[in-house]
Amino acid sequence: MSSAIGEFNPPERLLLGPGPSNIDPRILQVMGRTLVSHFDPEFFKIMDETTSLLQYAFQTANSLTLPISGTGTAGMEAAIYNAIEPGDRVLVCVAGYFSDRICQMVQRCSGELIRVDTEWGHAVDPGQVEAALKTSKVKVVALVHAETSTGMLQPLPEISRLVHDHGALFLVDTVTSLGGCPLKVDDWQLDVVYSGSQKCLNCPPGLAPITLSPQAEKALDARKHPVQSWYLDLTQIRHYWDSQRAYHHTLPITLNYAMREALRLVQEEGLEARWQRHQHNHQALMAGLQAMGLQPFAQAGYRLPSLNTVRVPEGISDAKVRGRLLQDYSIEIGGGLGKVKGQIWRIGLMGCNSTRKTVLTFLTALEAVLRVEGYALSTGAAWAAAEEVYGTAR
Amino acid sequence: MSSAIGEFNPPERLLLGPGPSNIDPRILQVMGRTLVSHFDPEFFKIMDETTSLLQYAFQTANSLTLPISGTGTAGMEAAIYNAIEPGDRVLVCVAGYFSDRICQMVQRCSGELIRVDTEWGHAVDPGQVEAALKTSKVKVVALVHAETSTGMLQPLPEISRLVHDHGALFLVDTVTSLGGCPLKVDDWQLDVVYSGSQKCLNCPPGLAPITLSPQAEKALDARKHPVQSWYLDLTQIRHYWDSQRAYHHTLPITLNYAMREALRLVQEEGLEARWQRHQHNHQALMAGLQAMGLQPFAQAGYRLPSLNTVRVPEGISDAKVRGRLLQDYSIEIGGGLGKVKGQIWRIGLMGCNSTRKTVLTFLTALEAVLRVEGYALSTGAAWAAAEEVYGTAR
Repeated sequence: MSSAIGEFNPPERLLLGPGPSNIDPRILQVMGRTLVSHFDPEFFKIMDETTSLLQYAFQTANSLTLPISGTGTAGMEAAIYNAIEPGDRVLVCVAGYFSDRICQMVQRCSGELIRVDTEWGHAVDPGQVEAALKTSKVKVVALVHAETSTGMLQPLPEISRLVHDHGALFLVDTVTSLGGCPLKVDDWQLDVVYSGSQKCLNCPPGLAPITLSPQAEKALDARKHPVQSWYLDLTQIRHYWDSQRAYHHTLPITLNYAMREALRLVQEEGLEARWQRHQHNHQALMAGLQAMGLQPFAQAGYRLPSLNTVRVPEGISDAKVRGRLLQDYSIEIGGGLGKVKGQIWRIGLMGCNSTRKTVLTFLTALEAVLRVEGYALSTGAAWAAAEEVYGTAR
Repeated sequence: MSSAIGEFNPPERLLLGPGPSNIDPRILQVMGRTLVSHFDPEFFKIMDETTSLLQYAFQTANSLTLPISGTGTAGMEAAIYNAIEPGDRVLVCVAGYFSDRICQMVQRCSGELIRVDTEWGHAVDPGQVEAALKTSKVKVVALVHAETSTGMLQPLPEISRLVHDHGALFLVDTVTSLGGCPLKVDDWQLDVVYSGSQKCLNCPPGLAPITLSPQAEKALDARKHPVQSWYLDLTQIRHYWDSQRAYHHTLPITLNYAMREALRLVQEEGLEARWQRHQHNHQALMAGLQAMGLQPFAQAGYRLPSLNTVRVPEGISDAKVRGRLLQDYSIEIGGGLGKVKGQIWRIGLMGCNSTRKTVLTFLTALEAVLRVEGYALSTGAAWAAAEEVYGTAR
């Protein structure tokens, strides 16, 4: 049946899609270390250190800060299912594929959904949010900070003020922003915040950091119904991560080694420096892409540095370009999801992939592929435009 | 805040607890390989090969056979939440900590629970199951094949016959049996079967293989309510694993590398040989433990080869013995869970840990520790009894 299944030697890819990004070599190394169990005193130290490092990355003092044992989608489900009880009214700002997924989960746990829709690629309008908040009393407002489907970075502080003025909790998806762009959980008063391991943190997929404000934890304590998921029930999981060490489930040990090392890398670099690096390489990449004549998809002023979106030029085949990049250059970028399928490219510069070398390599490869595909462009213009941003153009 | 958090070099443990077991060196190696994305054509091959290898390990032709992206508890939740709708009647055979957890999940998804309780450490009585099935029409009967909390291996074929005679689906937890003791999903007509990666397969924790029979899939298709978990919704996940490749969530790539390699190891050894190896080492270990005067906890004739349970002798401190084993020998074994806390030891011989070397090493260390703790026993008797089973005693 399966006798022909041999050893697996994956090809070396440059992962510039919407995630996963490449694993940092230091993270890859720690995953090869010997396993201890989830009850080992040495692992308890790892847990405490991970919480502490995550608090730094999230810029929070929240004690309920830990990685959920699943991918970013599990983080989303943990956030929503723990924050919402049947009948709770939830306002979701929908401006992309992943905020739409939030809506599906709100309905799946019997929340009463109110949508504020924004055109994909545009900033959520605080006025519209305020108007909706005035019409009906909601428990939770949900927003995707960094929409992986559109390349938008939504502004948080102003909407957070509105949310709290109306006595609601603010639930924020930071899957593609944590460790890549400014995020200040406490300063911005974010209440339920989750992320993923495989974007700007350069871990393999499989863990979803989450943090709850004291207000969100109070709401959790006041629940009348049990959390809809047993596996993701934070009323229990928090006591496995705190000093009680009450067994809940076997943690993905190796992925937790990886998460801790990723967060050490964040700490060593420093958040501010890391944010600036992502911003700088984003600017160089966008300058290069625009010099090729490609049109940005996301609204100016709100572009996500860790995920860059441009429109596929007319007459050019999305699939062919991505296929050639993968086959000829072993570079992966993302196509459009949902309603922009075939219309945009999504180019990730996440964590250790956000470098000048990556930007120049990618621009050069894309230029070559586009030329082969018959797109008219002036050779070297992209490279020169990027280098001008770096200030190293000759 | 966290500036003192240095590199992590875990101690080398011999993991003889209830899981995780030690990672096989070949599996550790593949986890250090470069990452491809979950949309890479090379990864699609991995997915197909994993399904095929899992079908062999489960002894099934079920097309819905894949690893859930979470630990064994996520596998349990996936099995229950997909099989049960609000109001469905579910009979759970409760004979340990993990079957009790199944009950909690049944209630959490609004199933109507019927318990058939069996004393911990004893075999479930088919007569009792039949009596319960005669009283009320149930949709699902759930049973833990290998109870990690008691060391019991419950007999499946006879109960399966009863379940199907009464038109129900049979849901079986094989977390600690898959790859360690006889399990024949198709021959035994098991309908919803899940497992974990970190027991007899020697992967790190974080994946939960699952398989659904055509009957179970038909029931899934006939659901009137959406599955309570979005993350674990098999009506969607199956189409990411089949030829549709419909994106659902980012799979834990590295853990899937590990799972595939683990299953290659199972295939290379062959299931029958692997089952016999586990049985043989189990017998040697139990002979050694009994030669020390320790009393088995699980009923004779139903002992789980991958997890051995004995009673803590009177006057001996459970915690002290396990502490010394960990500190002086870097060997981890498990204590009792729930109602047998402090009363039993749980000694795992799982996958690559089920060897003569492990058995002799452990018996020798335990003998030394027990002697220090003041337990009277005749030196070398355990070793001799084990070696007699191996047929190498001199």
